[in-house]
Amino acid sequence: MDNRAVGVFDSGLGGLTAVRQIRSILPSEDIIYFGDTSRVPYGGRSHETLLKFARQDVRFMRSFDIKAIVVACGTVSTNALPELTAENDLPILGVVDPACRRAAALTRNKRVGLIATAASVRTGAYAYAIRQIDGDVEVISKACPLFVPLVENGRYRPGDIVVETVAREYLEPLKAAGVDVLILGCTHYPLLAPVIAEVMGPEVRLIDTGAQAAWELKRELESRDLLAEDRRGRALYCVSDRPEDFGLLAGQFLQEDVPSVREVDIEQY
Amino acid sequence: MDNRAVGVFDSGLGGLTAVRQIRSILPSEDIIYFGDTSRVPYGGRSHETLLKFARQDVRFMRSFDIKAIVVACGTVSTNALPELTAENDLPILGVVDPACRRAAALTRNKRVGLIATAASVRTGAYAYAIRQIDGDVEVISKACPLFVPLVENGRYRPGDIVVETVAREYLEPLKAAGVDVLILGCTHYPLLAPVIAEVMGPEVRLIDTGAQAAWELKRELESRDLLAEDRRGRALYCVSDRPEDFGLLAGQFLQEDVPSVREVDIEQY
Repeated sequence: MDNRAVGVFDSGLGGLTAVRQIRSILPSEDIIYFGDTSRVPYGGRSHETLLKFARQDVRFMRSFDIKAIVVACGTVSTNALPELTAENDLPILGVVDPACRRAAALTRNKRVGLIATAASVRTGAYAYAIRQIDGDVEVISKACPLFVPLVENGRYRPGDIVVETVAREYLEPLKAAGVDVLILGCTHYPLLAPVIAEVMGPEVRLIDTGAQAAWELKRELESRDLLAEDRRGRALYCVSDRPEDFGLLAGQFLQEDVPSVREVDIEQY
Repeated sequence: MDNRAVGVFDSGLGGLTAVRQIRSILPSEDIIYFGDTSRVPYGGRSHETLLKFARQDVRFMRSFDIKAIVVACGTVSTNALPELTAENDLPILGVVDPACRRAAALTRNKRVGLIATAASVRTGAYAYAIRQIDGDVEVISKACPLFVPLVENGRYRPGDIVVETVAREYLEPLKAAGVDVLILGCTHYPLLAPVIAEVMGPEVRLIDTGAQAAWELKRELESRDLLAEDRRGRALYCVSDRPEDFGLLAGQFLQEDVPSVREVDIEQY
């Protein structure tokens, strides 16, 4: 039993979809969220820069008394997790491996689709992780650069011809390739799940990376006897820029009201 | 007579539409272009962050022997121009004032429309500048946050239902308000001019901020006797990230072939 908080960070606000899953799967846990909105997006930065940013994010998280960290950022998960894990004496979980394990377990025809930002697709990290688990699985990847701006502008609902047209164009090659599992490899994409499901059809299973990370966190806390006692956990939200914009997007990502947000000068960490 | 180069910078590659205009209006001038592709987009950042980025951009430009700077970024023009002008002993021109003077001169019914990024609209800088020129002009502004990602993903041509749907939604209020002049307050927007003209109709004059800045630069260089001698000017292109992506977009924005591009670590400036 351990009532200390879990830290969750992302380059921006997309990681709030992971927070939503953690709050649903582990409702007793306190959560401290940090979104590095002054330096978003991380995708496209050099390894050195990413490592510097990730270390600052972890140092900020550890300025609180926390028991574990979820790296809700795909780019940091694929670029800096080994270093962060080696340097810190607490569990640090990423979003890539849990989703890849789930995909490898679910696919029947050994054809897994991956959609993500251009930067995440370029690293090949998801495809590499899946092949480590099952060398027979073929991963078909597609960068979907317009999905994040569309979601951030509220255009993610079925019936919107703009997002439906873009989704059809992005997803058609994956559908044609016959994937039976599709990893939503960006924390923004769970909001698009209804539109994506409509294009891909009911026989394709969609994998939410935030939900898989939340289940992994639950297993990790259980195995180390670090679960919080039965109660209603609280959440603290921090960003490094434009806290006044937080409420609008956060409401969509979290689907709950956000009472307040704290601004952090991340360069100090 | 002065053969030193003119510096032009933008948060990304949109400023190349201004370079295209400068090369057409001032073909003898050498140009050094910097696109801050590692930190794009600037729109949405706080004033402090924008000022820091803009100062680094100017320091990089001044690492060359230049005679003037064009700030081809609407967000920097509206947020940091007074500071940059006060801190530097060379002409620094933005994209806002020249476009506003042109709009005030062209409008007959004193109703001017402005479309721009959310950050540019939020500052109110265009509306303020126009009212300084002519207090009777009413400015009707509309943020168009999806236009930049759509252009950057090649979706700006008439006949594309995605950009046409988004454009109609953004522009309908301006059309209903009866504007007879519309300022394209972002360097990406000239590529959308055919789509925008289709929605607004032939009676609405569109103002390209890059072209107006190029004319202003010509007047400024003439008045200070800083024009280059009659020759064919050259251009050097620099970006802070992913130079390999430069050619594709640059071709669209510049409408000429780009021989090579240099990568710059802007955090060092």
